[in-house]
Amino acid sequence: MKKHNFAAGPSIIPDSVKEVTAKGILDLNNIGLSVMEISHRSKDFLAIIQGAENLMRELLAVPDSHKILFVHGGASMNFCMIPYNLLQTKAAYLDTGAWSSKAIKEAKIFGEVNVVASSKEATYNYIPKGYTIPADADYFHITTNNTIYGTEIKTDIDSPVPLIADASSDIMSRPMDISKYGMVYGGAQKNVGPAGVAFVIIDESLLGKVDRPIPSMLDYRIHIKDESLYNTPSCLAVYGILNMLKWLKGMGGVEGIHKINVEKAGMLYDEIDRNKLFKSTVPDVNDRSIMNVTFIMNDDYKDKEAEFLEYAVSQGMVGIKGHRSVGGFRASIYNALPVDSVKALITAMKDFEAKL
Amino acid sequence: MKKHNFAAGPSIIPDSVKEVTAKGILDLNNIGLSVMEISHRSKDFLAIIQGAENLMRELLAVPDSHKILFVHGGASMNFCMIPYNLLQTKAAYLDTGAWSSKAIKEAKIFGEVNVVASSKEATYNYIPKGYTIPADADYFHITTNNTIYGTEIKTDIDSPVPLIADASSDIMSRPMDISKYGMVYGGAQKNVGPAGVAFVIIDESLLGKVDRPIPSMLDYRIHIKDESLYNTPSCLAVYGILNMLKWLKGMGGVEGIHKINVEKAGMLYDEIDRNKLFKSTVPDVNDRSIMNVTFIMNDDYKDKEAEFLEYAVSQGMVGIKGHRSVGGFRASIYNALPVDSVKALITAMKDFEAKL
Repeated sequence: MKKHNFAAGPSIIPDSVKEVTAKGILDLNNIGLSVMEISHRSKDFLAIIQGAENLMRELLAVPDSHKILFVHGGASMNFCMIPYNLLQTKAAYLDTGAWSSKAIKEAKIFGEVNVVASSKEATYNYIPKGYTIPADADYFHITTNNTIYGTEIKTDIDSPVPLIADASSDIMSRPMDISKYGMVYGGAQKNVGPAGVAFVIIDESLLGKVDRPIPSMLDYRIHIKDESLYNTPSCLAVYGILNMLKWLKGMGGVEGIHKINVEKAGMLYDEIDRNKLFKSTVPDVNDRSIMNVTFIMNDDYKDKEAEFLEYAVSQGMVGIKGHRSVGGFRASIYNALPVDSVKALITAMKDFEAKL
Repeated sequence: MKKHNFAAGPSIIPDSVKEVTAKGILDLNNIGLSVMEISHRSKDFLAIIQGAENLMRELLAVPDSHKILFVHGGASMNFCMIPYNLLQTKAAYLDTGAWSSKAIKEAKIFGEVNVVASSKEATYNYIPKGYTIPADADYFHITTNNTIYGTEIKTDIDSPVPLIADASSDIMSRPMDISKYGMVYGGAQKNVGPAGVAFVIIDESLLGKVDRPIPSMLDYRIHIKDESLYNTPSCLAVYGILNMLKWLKGMGGVEGIHKINVEKAGMLYDEIDRNKLFKSTVPDVNDRSIMNVTFIMNDDYKDKEAEFLEYAVSQGMVGIKGHRSVGGFRASIYNALPVDSVKALITAMKDFEAKL
């Protein structure tokens, strides 16, 4: 039976990307060697990592002021790298979920943290508005998409201080004006490629202002100087990124995929709003994520949750159980998820409703 | 033409490991999903990471006192994690090469560093002996194998304080008495698997003694508590590790491979010592590495270096150019390199000698 992969991350990879990556593992570009066994300083690997960087720059229209890095440790490592490199006295953070909270926790090791607003009291089911970003903060940190709660900041907000965005789960899903950000970063394992690497897009002029000594592997300046090759990178994951970005370009880039993403999300939210069994966990439609669609059973059907999950799994749905802190269901509909998989989920929702 | 892969790392991977890994990228264990697109908390991935840990424990006979972790960032990230977690006032380091020096540099950020001995004055062409390890050091750090210089500490040394070994390039090449070490760690990309992950084998009782706050991703206690799943691991690299360790077990484990490694190294050193064109860069035979065989042209044939390199490459040799700081040649003969490849290199050396 065909699987419909709604996993939150690591998440669905296009079949063509799997095929190219598997081929490179057996024999990269017919050189007689695997992508797993070549030097990270060989011309073959340099073509991969530089190709991935160039494609990311092209697809997101990254301005020359910003460097692109592929570093170890995922978004979580950047939670400490950001204050290590950038927090002089005070940083501002917007708390929109568990990942924002983790970033805040790490920043507190390095200086004063001003949490400008939080939606924690409502299980993060909305994006706070109307807060003030302190003009004396070294930077303002946001999480653009909150996978657990299904909320998303879908526009490039204005900030009086450098704006830093953890965009792990919505990068490449829509056009962004990178020039409005001091830094955009995230784990690769949603729209960028396989797990094992973080992308960092950073305005180099922000660096070099802190007094504290920075361990080499945590110092963005060192990774910039060595073009992501200060140490051996996560080569296989970087190869996956190159293949994934090539696929994205073939889909029309971020503009092309954004149209499809809006269509997929719209279809699914429409069904959630229509179907008597379900309701969205995010009341304000403007805050609803186009990447992670979270929904629960309507009050009259709470006892049917396990039964629907079982039915959906029987129809090929993978990874739609909601996070324990929200309950219900989460359909992660990243770039690579086909429209047909969304349609299959909608059919399962309709059929289950009809059976009751 | 068949390639003989002597790359220093990332380095040769057995064909069977490439095949299994490529298969898992297309469809893992026939579950209809790629190993790249499943949750790191799914039962399928837990079987992979726990399987890798269990195999490493079995193959190295790791005692229960020691935890095994797969963390981000390679050996280089551990250069700062070690002092972050373990350096209270003073640490002792043995300086046997560029990688030791990098580890020392990071440790100095966190406290006093006593370099007990160094062979830097001789381009690190020997392993220092007769040094004293200070009994009041928090730990003593060594690099067991020095890839650039072709030297190796081939026995498990006695230390009055916890012994920490960067064994990036000789782990799994020989039996080790892990109980003699407080910690053994390294990047995976030689004998353990593909690049993108570091293994850490650590005596848990060493932790929790420092006062400084430790960022979560750098805190070994957090990775122990979450069994290497605090954040999304480098999934694909961990899958490669599982496949590589299964292959090693099939080769007779570290005992079986050690016999082959000694045979391979012996053949190659014998030819270097015999052939009038070449000489080893490591005068003391006891210090010669069984993983990285470094050699240069003999004094009378220095002008033939480029010509031999070109000839060797024409015969299928890959990655045998020596590191710029040593010059000449480096044949990395890790576990996965077949005896036939060593024989092919020896044949090239003999044939080139005969042609002159």
